[in-house]
Amino acid sequence: MRTLRELLGIELPVVQAPMAGVQDARLALAVSAAGGLGSLPCAMLTPEAMRREFAALAAATDRPVNVNFFCHAPPRPDPTREEAWRRALAPYYRELGVDAANLPPGPSRAPFGTEALAIVEAFRPKVVSFHFGLPADDLLARVKALGAHILACATTVEEARWLEARGVDAIVAQGLEAGGHRGHFLSRDLTAQMGTLALVPQVAAAVRVPVIAAGGIADASGVAAAMALGAAGVQVGTAYLLCPEATTSAVHRAALAGEGARHTALTNLFSGRPARGIVNRLMRELGPLSEAAPAFPLAAAAVAPLRAAAESAGSGDFSPLWAGQNAGGCRGIPAADLTRELAAGA
Amino acid sequence: MRTLRELLGIELPVVQAPMAGVQDARLALAVSAAGGLGSLPCAMLTPEAMRREFAALAAATDRPVNVNFFCHAPPRPDPTREEAWRRALAPYYRELGVDAANLPPGPSRAPFGTEALAIVEAFRPKVVSFHFGLPADDLLARVKALGAHILACATTVEEARWLEARGVDAIVAQGLEAGGHRGHFLSRDLTAQMGTLALVPQVAAAVRVPVIAAGGIADASGVAAAMALGAAGVQVGTAYLLCPEATTSAVHRAALAGEGARHTALTNLFSGRPARGIVNRLMRELGPLSEAAPAFPLAAAAVAPLRAAAESAGSGDFSPLWAGQNAGGCRGIPAADLTRELAAGA
Repeated sequence: MRTLRELLGIELPVVQAPMAGVQDARLALAVSAAGGLGSLPCAMLTPEAMRREFAALAAATDRPVNVNFFCHAPPRPDPTREEAWRRALAPYYRELGVDAANLPPGPSRAPFGTEALAIVEAFRPKVVSFHFGLPADDLLARVKALGAHILACATTVEEARWLEARGVDAIVAQGLEAGGHRGHFLSRDLTAQMGTLALVPQVAAAVRVPVIAAGGIADASGVAAAMALGAAGVQVGTAYLLCPEATTSAVHRAALAGEGARHTALTNLFSGRPARGIVNRLMRELGPLSEAAPAFPLAAAAVAPLRAAAESAGSGDFSPLWAGQNAGGCRGIPAADLTRELAAGA
Repeated sequence: MRTLRELLGIELPVVQAPMAGVQDARLALAVSAAGGLGSLPCAMLTPEAMRREFAALAAATDRPVNVNFFCHAPPRPDPTREEAWRRALAPYYRELGVDAANLPPGPSRAPFGTEALAIVEAFRPKVVSFHFGLPADDLLARVKALGAHILACATTVEEARWLEARGVDAIVAQGLEAGGHRGHFLSRDLTAQMGTLALVPQVAAAVRVPVIAAGGIADASGVAAAMALGAAGVQVGTAYLLCPEATTSAVHRAALAGEGARHTALTNLFSGRPARGIVNRLMRELGPLSEAAPAFPLAAAAVAPLRAAAESAGSGDFSPLWAGQNAGGCRGIPAADLTRELAAGA
């Protein structure tokens, strides 16, 4: 098994998890400059923003930076269901003074397609990672033809084998502790999702490509544990959220620094797919997982104005406060310092 | 922090998890003889059986052996709910030819009380552990007065602090990967349950007593990971289930050795409390967590005859196939060998 360092041309086996909505190229560059693998999440970027961010990466470094895309099947719009979702949220619209008759279009999350491919082909990133599976074979082949190393996320042994069979270069084994969106794509049955300590050794035993452990890793001792389990490296997200280079909002930072960060849950309320965040008012009142939420990513649009209104009053009651099950590593230190501290456990 | 070895007088920091229903004194003795801490689960034993097992321990060894008790509040019988539960199971009674009008009393699980205390006082075990919290203060004080070291299970930081404040000598931090019954006792909210990799470092940072990591630890590398996370030792259950000294049933052994062991879920169908087992027919058909199941341990009685009928035909469709999320360590080797192999990771 090649080491992650050999494979990706990095010095430290620490991947900064791509975190759409809370970071841009700046965090990625800080991590890559420190010798880790910074990541740029592209799922919520317009093509224009993507070009701008890729250009920022290209201008700043020759080191590998990972660019990350989602690979979900775009949902069929379902006006009835979306209307029911807005009705479920109606009491909150009234409370926060949101004009329910004129909701703006929400944040979009587009799957990797030909437009993103064209941008990738123009900028030729050294590493490309995918979440929710992989793009269609022809698209994937064109990314691989650029010489990019491909990372992809598995949450089960079956998914890891599926990804390896399609030629990914390394697998991110995402344990249930991880913050943000669960990457499952072969089954929606959440009982199939495993804790990091159980998942990593089983994935490492099942595939020949390097395994990058993700989920609950907050400090050097977590990295040491992951390496003991057979990981070739780690992917860490939550611990970077308080770094000055992240664009984490004020309410999100406050939540991460508080005792409440100890209680996270998987919720589909903010996007339509299960993702781990700190339990807040909306999750408590609707239940963190609701049948009422439309398919990913359609649930987001109706919640977005509530989030904006609440955040402008300093409240995270309606915000996706993404976080893993161990926020103990969150500190307001430069991302480079955090990267080196984490790597000390490798 | 004292090491677990110093505290408990054992050679290897490996605790064999008490597993009611699949083991007796024989497994405990094999583990303790190898230098680990064997455990005798007492929750399903009659006072007579308990005396017999304690006598077997006393006759065989002077080494520490842990005796384990449940501390749940006994449920108020609820005939309406129990009748509804039997109705939910009625199609299965018909299918398996079980006489629903004459169901035998099911397996009982009594909480630690004065009768168990009297037996403990007679046999003076060196280590006593509790699940689902602790017994009442006066009972606990009498156990401590015997000089027994007290272990207890925490599934959250709050539970760990609660246990430490009541004077336990070491805390078993039970991650979500663990097989069998979840030990939570301060909250029933399952979203509060954490993966081992996230739980152990947070508990270790929150208390001063030694922390024993449990959940998903299947081999020496899992032990090494747990120690890296700050654990003073490990508790391992699932990996012992195929040992010849365990009383694991044939259907349970077959399930553990199969591919299906990769898919476990928390289920309350077999007892009324969430416990992790391999997904089988009853869990698939009723949903692993059902509102219909009566309070712990009352759900068990109505399922027991289905289990017996199915098992006599070689089927585990109605059996609690307890297992953690990593059955990769299950092998039919002597428990002493397994204990030494695990300890090599410490």
